[in-house]
Amino acid sequence: MEKTSETNATNGELKDVKDAINNGSVCGYDSLHQLLAQNLKPELFQEVSRMLLGLNCGKLLQSISIAEPVKSLSLKHDFDLQAYSFHADKESFRESRIVRVGLIQNSIALPTTAPFSDQKRAIFEKVKPIVDAAGASGVNILCLQEAWMMPFAFCTREKKWCEFAEPLDGESTRFLQDLALRYNMVIISSILERDVSHGDTLWNTAVVIGNHGNIIGKHRKNHIPRVGDFNESTYYMEGNTGHPVFETTYGKIAVNICYGRHHPLNWLAFGLNGAEIVFNPSATVGELSEPMWPIEARNAAIANSYFVGSINRVGTETFPNPFTSGDGKPQHADFGHFYGSSHFSAPDASCTPSLSRFRDGLLISDMDLNLCRQLKDKWGFRMTARYEMYAETLARYLKPDFKPQVISDPLLHKKAT
Amino acid sequence: MEKTSETNATNGELKDVKDAINNGSVCGYDSLHQLLAQNLKPELFQEVSRMLLGLNCGKLLQSISIAEPVKSLSLKHDFDLQAYSFHADKESFRESRIVRVGLIQNSIALPTTAPFSDQKRAIFEKVKPIVDAAGASGVNILCLQEAWMMPFAFCTREKKWCEFAEPLDGESTRFLQDLALRYNMVIISSILERDVSHGDTLWNTAVVIGNHGNIIGKHRKNHIPRVGDFNESTYYMEGNTGHPVFETTYGKIAVNICYGRHHPLNWLAFGLNGAEIVFNPSATVGELSEPMWPIEARNAAIANSYFVGSINRVGTETFPNPFTSGDGKPQHADFGHFYGSSHFSAPDASCTPSLSRFRDGLLISDMDLNLCRQLKDKWGFRMTARYEMYAETLARYLKPDFKPQVISDPLLHKKAT
Repeated sequence: MEKTSETNATNGELKDVKDAINNGSVCGYDSLHQLLAQNLKPELFQEVSRMLLGLNCGKLLQSISIAEPVKSLSLKHDFDLQAYSFHADKESFRESRIVRVGLIQNSIALPTTAPFSDQKRAIFEKVKPIVDAAGASGVNILCLQEAWMMPFAFCTREKKWCEFAEPLDGESTRFLQDLALRYNMVIISSILERDVSHGDTLWNTAVVIGNHGNIIGKHRKNHIPRVGDFNESTYYMEGNTGHPVFETTYGKIAVNICYGRHHPLNWLAFGLNGAEIVFNPSATVGELSEPMWPIEARNAAIANSYFVGSINRVGTETFPNPFTSGDGKPQHADFGHFYGSSHFSAPDASCTPSLSRFRDGLLISDMDLNLCRQLKDKWGFRMTARYEMYAETLARYLKPDFKPQVISDPLLHKKAT
Repeated sequence: MEKTSETNATNGELKDVKDAINNGSVCGYDSLHQLLAQNLKPELFQEVSRMLLGLNCGKLLQSISIAEPVKSLSLKHDFDLQAYSFHADKESFRESRIVRVGLIQNSIALPTTAPFSDQKRAIFEKVKPIVDAAGASGVNILCLQEAWMMPFAFCTREKKWCEFAEPLDGESTRFLQDLALRYNMVIISSILERDVSHGDTLWNTAVVIGNHGNIIGKHRKNHIPRVGDFNESTYYMEGNTGHPVFETTYGKIAVNICYGRHHPLNWLAFGLNGAEIVFNPSATVGELSEPMWPIEARNAAIANSYFVGSINRVGTETFPNPFTSGDGKPQHADFGHFYGSSHFSAPDASCTPSLSRFRDGLLISDMDLNLCRQLKDKWGFRMTARYEMYAETLARYLKPDFKPQVISDPLLHKKAT
């Protein structure tokens, strides 16, 4: 047997693939869902949706109609706007607990060469009408992308970007506190945090703002990447806030920041603490992670019986000074294309279509939080999990003299007869 | 806002969806990959493959050509036959460790009303030419589906099916030992095991047979389902063999049997013990799990930096006596459609197309086991995992008086202003 044909692109076509990653120029599409919807016959699209999006018989994802003034905002400010509703059964002893949840993805607003204060102000001005659209749509809980108030400059290893860091109650938080109060909305704001009380240290932090405009608390990113252009460990260390679940007016929520989505134990711990929705504000680029993007979030939702809201920033950010990746690529001045594609995953394995790969966007979903316990009752993952076995396994693994459980074939080195 | 339109099937179309689940009658397709390949323009299919199958620039999945005598076997015995090769980089200090791995999915051969010994013999006869095809193709490691030597009768709750159980070195094992020796092939055989030494107890067990025809060892299913028609806890208990990794002539392998794929900790423990390929022999039906099927396996491969081979049986098995599900559905005599769709997932987030949803099949893949460590070096998931934090979390969680880490909004019960 020898290799003969390739199921996909030849090398000559690789540039086209890269172009597609960056700007969709090859295919002229906005999202995977839209590509499939426009190019498959309806009955085929329906079957593909059943397999890919988990839209199973009797459990249909519904679109929600959007009010005209909100549509106008999305047209005027050119952001993608989609809204869906997940299905859950009615129960006898509990009222439905339907909450409306929103995710915002956005590109930066000014070149990274502009004065920092102008850059930040311009991002505020860009995000404001999208938050207004969420507020006008009655969104109860809203989450922004990772470090939404700055360019994602951690590829540069230049320390000047630390200037963007703010204390927990800094101007980004105050900006959103006003909006949270105005719209009676919980807002999760992921910022670069400066902890003045602990020697001006930096953290990658999510601030949780209550619907009365109060700060409920914070969570600091647990797992820090050291991969490709992601030189984040240059800027901040692993979080020291555990796995808090925030009990808000609208439900129990938690935040798994960016690279933490690659760690099933991180997702698990938020589940053990009772989260009903876990947000994953992220910043990640096509060539590095796009095929993993829908997999990890949906797996977390399934395995832990909660909803997941995944947010990725969008666009390409070019920096003044070129940098190298540490992976042998020539020096370059951008990180690659942040592919957006924000979406929700549900504990019943269904998920929404994703927002655009190329444009700012607001994704809204209604979800009955009762679905979490319904899935726990159906599948019994918690009860069949045998946590005591894994607590023991992990404790053993941590010992320096850990011996893996390996059963070797006694005939390992015998030649074939 | 009120719900207006449905993005997918209306209720009137639900029967069509069910038909599609069971027999593909609506769409006339064999697998998701083939449906997309035949109905999308090549450049769109290429982009969809990049996003869905993780076939990224420069890391292209290649088809392997199949020898004519093997093709003839697949035509004569009517089984799907596909072969691919995963990409890995060359290294300076290690030779490539390319192994050829096979997965077999099959339906049963006789009606479940036939004498049990006839049923078992007929399955042997059906599986034999597929194993021969693997052997003739130079497959090094071959895995069969869960309880391949019997109908998946655990929905019935009738104890007569216990008769199919065999000791570790019973006739199914001996049948495969001959073939393992003949083809110099490691074979993983998932059976219903009877442990005569421990009071005739039953286990759901994978027997690992070495390439010299010897029995290397066994693993017993760690997590037992209690969901829908899956009444397996009626028949056997949680496994007592830990998470063994079997060091074979061709690499370090492990077996995560069926429902264990829903447990990220189970996947993790095989990884901690050093597995390079984890097989997931399964038996699962469309309505229950199909949207989860590609998600969980691929997430495990990504998170643990190893290959995963997923196998599901195929077809609909009808039993003599109707049974109820315990979920309110009327009594029925079958479990639903086992949707096949066996496939491989790689640690770099790529995966192969799946075998047919409807036919027996043999899936072959070449994989360089060096890819596992290459991905560990690239992403650093093990080094950034903070296992000590999670060992502590799990130990705390196990205590009866465990208090979840919850931060409550102090204004939780304040009315909106």
